[in-house]
Amino acid sequence: MNTENFLASERLVNAAYVRQGSQGRRAHELRLRALLEQGKCPEDGWDESTIELFLHELAIMDSNNFLGNCGVGEREGRVASGLVARRHYRLIHGIGRSGDISAVQPKAAGSSLLNKLTNSVALDIIKLAGVRTASSCFVVPMATGMSLTLCFLTLRHKRPKAKYIIWPRIDQKSCFKSMITAGFEPVVVENVLEGDELRTDLKAVEAKIQDLEADNILCVHSTTSCFAPRVPDRLEELAEICARYDIPHIVNNAYGVQSSKCMHLIQQGARRGRIDAFVQSLDKNFMVPVGGAIIAGFSDSFIQEISKMYPGRASASPSLDLLITLLTLGTKGYQQLLKERKEMFSYLSENVKKLAEAYNERLLETPHNPISLAMSLRELDKQSGTAVTQLGSMLFTRQVSGARVVPLGSQQTSSGEANMMCRDCWTLNSHQPQPA
Amino acid sequence: MNTENFLASERLVNAAYVRQGSQGRRAHELRLRALLEQGKCPEDGWDESTIELFLHELAIMDSNNFLGNCGVGEREGRVASGLVARRHYRLIHGIGRSGDISAVQPKAAGSSLLNKLTNSVALDIIKLAGVRTASSCFVVPMATGMSLTLCFLTLRHKRPKAKYIIWPRIDQKSCFKSMITAGFEPVVVENVLEGDELRTDLKAVEAKIQDLEADNILCVHSTTSCFAPRVPDRLEELAEICARYDIPHIVNNAYGVQSSKCMHLIQQGARRGRIDAFVQSLDKNFMVPVGGAIIAGFSDSFIQEISKMYPGRASASPSLDLLITLLTLGTKGYQQLLKERKEMFSYLSENVKKLAEAYNERLLETPHNPISLAMSLRELDKQSGTAVTQLGSMLFTRQVSGARVVPLGSQQTSSGEANMMCRDCWTLNSHQPQPA
Amino acid sequence: MNTENFLASERLVNAAYVRQGSQGRRAHELRLRALLEQGKCPEDGWDESTIELFLHELAIMDSNNFLGNCGVGEREGRVASGLVARRHYRLIHGIGRSGDISAVQPKAAGSSLLNKLTNSVALDIIKLAGVRTASSCFVVPMATGMSLTLCFLTLRHKRPKAKYIIWPRIDQKSCFKSMITAGFEPVVVENVLEGDELRTDLKAVEAKIQDLEADNILCVHSTTSCFAPRVPDRLEELAEICARYDIPHIVNNAYGVQSSKCMHLIQQGARRGRIDAFVQSLDKNFMVPVGGAIIAGFSDSFIQEISKMYPGRASASPSLDLLITLLTLGTKGYQQLLKERKEMFSYLSENVKKLAEAYNERLLETPHNPISLAMSLRELDKQSGTAVTQLGSMLFTRQVSGARVVPLGSQQTSSGEANMMCRDCWTLNSHQPQPA
Amino acid sequence: MNTENFLASERLVNAAYVRQGSQGRRAHELRLRALLEQGKCPEDGWDESTIELFLHELAIMDSNNFLGNCGVGEREGRVASGLVARRHYRLIHGIGRSGDISAVQPKAAGSSLLNKLTNSVALDIIKLAGVRTASSCFVVPMATGMSLTLCFLTLRHKRPKAKYIIWPRIDQKSCFKSMITAGFEPVVVENVLEGDELRTDLKAVEAKIQDLEADNILCVHSTTSCFAPRVPDRLEELAEICARYDIPHIVNNAYGVQSSKCMHLIQQGARRGRIDAFVQSLDKNFMVPVGGAIIAGFSDSFIQEISKMYPGRASASPSLDLLITLLTLGTKGYQQLLKERKEMFSYLSENVKKLAEAYNERLLETPHNPISLAMSLRELDKQSGTAVTQLGSMLFTRQVSGARVVPLGSQQTSSGEANMMCRDCWTLNSHQPQPA
Repeated sequence: MNTENFLASERLVNAAYVRQGSQGRRAHELRLRALLEQGKCPEDGWDESTIELFLHELAIMDSNNFLGNCGVGEREGRVASGLVARRHYRLIHGIGRSGDISAVQPKAAGSSLLNKLTNSVALDIIKLAGVRTASSCFVVPMATGMSLTLCFLTLRHKRPKAKYIIWPRIDQKSCFKSMITAGFEPVVVENVLEGDELRTDLKAVEAKIQDLEADNILCVHSTTSCFAPRVPDRLEELAEICARYDIPHIVNNAYGVQSSKCMHLIQQGARRGRIDAFVQSLDKNFMVPVGGAIIAGFSDSFIQEISKMYPGRASASPSLDLLITLLTLGTKGYQQLLKERKEMFSYLSENVKKLAEAYNERLLETPHNPISLAMSLRELDKQSGTAVTQLGSMLFTRQVSGARVVPLGSQQTSSGEANMMCRDCWTLNSHQPQPA
Repeated sequence: MNTENFLASERLVNAAYVRQGSQGRRAHELRLRALLEQGKCPEDGWDESTIELFLHELAIMDSNNFLGNCGVGEREGRVASGLVARRHYRLIHGIGRSGDISAVQPKAAGSSLLNKLTNSVALDIIKLAGVRTASSCFVVPMATGMSLTLCFLTLRHKRPKAKYIIWPRIDQKSCFKSMITAGFEPVVVENVLEGDELRTDLKAVEAKIQDLEADNILCVHSTTSCFAPRVPDRLEELAEICARYDIPHIVNNAYGVQSSKCMHLIQQGARRGRIDAFVQSLDKNFMVPVGGAIIAGFSDSFIQEISKMYPGRASASPSLDLLITLLTLGTKGYQQLLKERKEMFSYLSENVKKLAEAYNERLLETPHNPISLAMSLRELDKQSGTAVTQLGSMLFTRQVSGARVVPLGSQQTSSGEANMMCRDCWTLNSHQPQPA
Repeated sequence: MNTENFLASERLVNAAYVRQGSQGRRAHELRLRALLEQGKCPEDGWDESTIELFLHELAIMDSNNFLGNCGVGEREGRVASGLVARRHYRLIHGIGRSGDISAVQPKAAGSSLLNKLTNSVALDIIKLAGVRTASSCFVVPMATGMSLTLCFLTLRHKRPKAKYIIWPRIDQKSCFKSMITAGFEPVVVENVLEGDELRTDLKAVEAKIQDLEADNILCVHSTTSCFAPRVPDRLEELAEICARYDIPHIVNNAYGVQSSKCMHLIQQGARRGRIDAFVQSLDKNFMVPVGGAIIAGFSDSFIQEISKMYPGRASASPSLDLLITLLTLGTKGYQQLLKERKEMFSYLSENVKKLAEAYNERLLETPHNPISLAMSLRELDKQSGTAVTQLGSMLFTRQVSGARVVPLGSQQTSSGEANMMCRDCWTLNSHQPQPA
Repeated sequence: MNTENFLASERLVNAAYVRQGSQGRRAHELRLRALLEQGKCPEDGWDESTIELFLHELAIMDSNNFLGNCGVGEREGRVASGLVARRHYRLIHGIGRSGDISAVQPKAAGSSLLNKLTNSVALDIIKLAGVRTASSCFVVPMATGMSLTLCFLTLRHKRPKAKYIIWPRIDQKSCFKSMITAGFEPVVVENVLEGDELRTDLKAVEAKIQDLEADNILCVHSTTSCFAPRVPDRLEELAEICARYDIPHIVNNAYGVQSSKCMHLIQQGARRGRIDAFVQSLDKNFMVPVGGAIIAGFSDSFIQEISKMYPGRASASPSLDLLITLLTLGTKGYQQLLKERKEMFSYLSENVKKLAEAYNERLLETPHNPISLAMSLRELDKQSGTAVTQLGSMLFTRQVSGARVVPLGSQQTSSGEANMMCRDCWTLNSHQPQPA
């Protein structure tokens, strides 16, 4: 309520009480102001009542919520279902304009603020998580893979001759498809085995570049977060190679924000060499529903070029989820979750090791992978041909999800989901714990 | 958002758009202001977004929603469950103080505003519905019957000798019990048959008064809304008798607000004689959940005496429901519902008449009852001893609820639910239609 | 979904996945079954998704949610506002019938289940909290004071000659008013000072009984929870006196469920003497919104008599809040809160003691009061006539609520809110902590 | 509740009432069954209570809502914020798998059902709206423009030599950008003026094809819905040309579902020639928040190829919104909205005509455009150089949005938003009315 309404209230209720109520309101307003002025994630999380008030305030700034609005166009934020209107807090106009997904909409000042603030708060968190020199980012309501596709499509206009993408192998279908969909030919560089770890073959990468010639190469497409025994790519050295040959470098950091090691790799890569953009999933790093990604980088103009490639306005839903979540957690809450994940990973690691030893198997040594573990299943495989697959279905019926059991010698295409290289391992990922 | 926050927003989003957003907000604020200043039901209903914004604003004026509140008492508006907090819009403190259910609470300026505004808007609607000279009312989170009890308990202090309540018979258990619970002896005055109608026996009422002596009588307890063939009491004449003998007069107007005839009777009664308070159900007149009533009257001081009798703070839930509902409907919406109910009653009346004739029965002629209809079931009863009861269960399994089938000669105690007088009639009520 | 719908789903989605989904559903159903069969508070709290599913299931059992329901009566659970319908989970019919607030409604099987289960779970918690032999209870949507009034009104029918209620003094307005409203004359028995504590004067009580004669006394009205330096009444001895003189005994246990000591007193009183009913506030003991109470006792028939005194159906809102809250917490969660409150009381006690000593004041020694503390303000009072009242307003502006500052010598009527006896004390209550 | 739980309920509540409650539940289940078995939009809309029950049921089939689920992977549907979880009804897993956005997810049977049903119901509505032979479609959480991009990227793999897209000019930025982003060169074919209408220049199209050669052309990209005085493309003839030259044909049907004429054009085009896919916006046709589109076509295999191009899982939010909306409206409700839009268009047309005449201007005659109107502003333009732009800002401040005022002679690039061709016209669109 504004000042006049508080005054009007004093007619009904003791002025001293109304004044205290108005001060109560002011405390919420001050939180909003800090957010609007600094564009940063608050240190302490907001309670639901402040967040809902804020979203209400944003919503009534959008033209579809104007009393007496007369919309005669085809984009007027009409909503047929009350259920739908409510679940979006009546923020209906989406984000961006046909010209730029990060742009401001004349009809929707509230949704535009939401979009700007989300991107600003997201950048703050990315810096906090370790990529301190990141200068620009935006949330896009698409999967990590499709977001990588958008990066590749943007680069096409800068490198008209390019046909190839250099890609140190990682066995996840959507990474492979992100290049195919963009219309490029992935040049797969196999990894090398160092101890138990599968690591980037830098020499092979450089050889491929020389072989194909830089102009024909769209970019190097590297990866941080991955399943053991593969470990994050040698980002620093790849970044240096890219700088040396003047080739763009796009990093798939799908679920790497949660790990300080992955973020450190990106920071170091950008310091010592070239990284054009790095892409991270919203759901895997920020515990929101599936369907969004953050495209971030170190050059404002390049990141803006990508945001200008998206044709049309886009769903505000992932941005809304991210903003609500970060305001709820605050930087303290998010850092606490990062800390708990790390502790849980150590705990998991120790106990899988004990388990492995008890069954005469072993936990592979993959110290460079801060997220995923792999355990051998050799003895089990000796018992019978089907024991390994049975283990898989036993885990399924016991509601253990996320572990992958890969039978020995199963061959899959490079776009297959299983990691051929890890063969008889039981891969475990340690992720953010569910909050109580 | 306040002015400073709108200014801060202009840093992020084009100032012209923010300004339009701020004007959008202002339109909602103006609605609130009109409500706060006039305390009347708005003519046009508010949309959900204005209502929710308003409730949010009220909530953050309550101390339990202050950021950094330090509550060390036993009444601090603590809530353990988020589900519960949300469903009450975080308005937790209830209404009233131990001294007065209509009083303002120091810890809860928002809830206090809610309480004041609800009572004020309720009074506006009661006037609009026909009792134009009503001067005071309050919502109480109790059933109509219990609210009548509270009126009787208040009168006890004014009439220490009184033991009896004069009560023209109406066969609903809770009306009878409201007097018993208050500790008084109901003096039942049987109605007289005029044509098909059962009407107040004024002579018998006056005779009872003379017989028992005014001082021994707490009040006359009359009724408007009732099941045909009983019709509303002769309120004007009863009010005149009460004035003449200086006896209080409490009217049970349970579901009478919906009918202009019932409201007119109360208005006329108060003009020509004495009515101390009239009580109406919230759910039956305003389509809210069961559990509240409005106690209204023509003397501010007497209504306040009643509100001061409630020991303790009370649930705000019925007040909240009523306020939301009246703001949603607006006076136009409420009057539209009243109109539709009337039309539906005519429609029902015509068709039950046709039905009755088709089966050689008849619709009783009860023109003074604007709400309920009765139809004979004589032929059906002749067929077999159980045909009438079977009809009842047939209606039940066909999901027709609210009709009552009363077998011939069934005798019940005066606190029984069935209307002995109507015997073999099938009673139908026509009520507000469900909104689409 | 039922079995047929799961089968139909297998046409669209892999049967193995559907089957796992159906097992997921079954786990929720099993929780419901345990509740329905045992009627007890679950040990582990339910998550929101199970609770909402459960409330949905209850709602669609009520006739207002039947598809194709044809309601022609005046009580059909109509709702005009979607906001209102949703906040009550579409449970509109309230609880009870005109005959009995604990009775089952034919039109509302779901609301009736809600009512029965809430009362059953509430009884379970009361036993768990220490009154193990309690046999019956029900939730009533009225303040503690009004609930006490209902108890007194019930007793009136059993003791037609009674005019007086014996009441060991407690300075809270609504306790006093509960008797006045019921139409009885409170006979105030002053407490005696034992050390710093104000305790029941048993001799004076017995003298009053002999003086007034048992038949003229409606009941003894004792209190457990209260502000220091008053301490809970000597319940055991009072109960013995009541048994000896055959006088009913009603206990005001307003915020006593949270304290094992208060509950133990009631248990012991009932074992050794006579307690007819004890009444507790919902908001103060269970952290729900203001407006409900539990009336409990040791005789099923007497508790049922009280529930039969409420004329009309009542609001289900407080019952719904209590059920949601107890299902959310589980017995473990509730016991954890009780434990934390105790610890916080010790902490508060220690620190107020230190504070008092630092300012040359003292924390009064009131070991029998497990809930409230009192500290002297003598030195402050010596400084100036207004220093003490200033302290009060300083606490108010610092958002410390619930502490009461009572200036020396302030005289108030016995229905006044301030405790005359504690004079220059700063009363602090230690209550349940707000959950994170 | 399942049968066992209903039985358990009979212990607490009269069996007859429980049985009626269980039948009430059954009616909701039957609706669900019809949907699951037929996969069609119900004729009558569902009420909110059935929809919410349905979404609850879907949610508890997803592994993130299993009680005791143990997720150790990186995609486990974790949610940090309760606000976020609730607004998505706890459906967190999104839709699709990395291999295919229409595929079923093992961890999320409920979300998978949601995805399948939404696509199935959407197809039903597209047929109903006039494209009766459409055989396949899917909802994609991307803008219409980005969805067109995905279609073009899919075609690339089938036509490796192709560089050009033939595009009858339409002045909307995102249409142009959809081709640029996909990496193709738009070949703009200017329209011809027929009376007031701007229509497809078929000869120029054919000439371009012959000129560039079919193999070098990715597809013809035509448009239905557009701003007057441009009218929908001559789809039938374009489709025939495409068939003749064996060139794919993608139709931008952005806001055409609402118009039976646009849908008829697509149906006829597919009957007489070749249409590979047609793309429509969710918000503009179905009144949901911005951010989704439906890609539909006549060949299952081609539509599936497109759905397999999306790399990664995607947001379920637009699918959820569409399903809720269509279940709420039912086919009757949707057809009613279509009818009202048509009537409103006639009304608007008549009144703009009168207005134009009153000011000595004229409404352009564009009978082939069923959605948008254009009015000349010649006289206004003569008055002063700024009068026309002032009109624009007057409309803005009067909260009339969606009308575009184009000053005479304003030249914009072909990717500009204003329609150069319509020059001095005031364009008005008539869209779906807001439901009450």
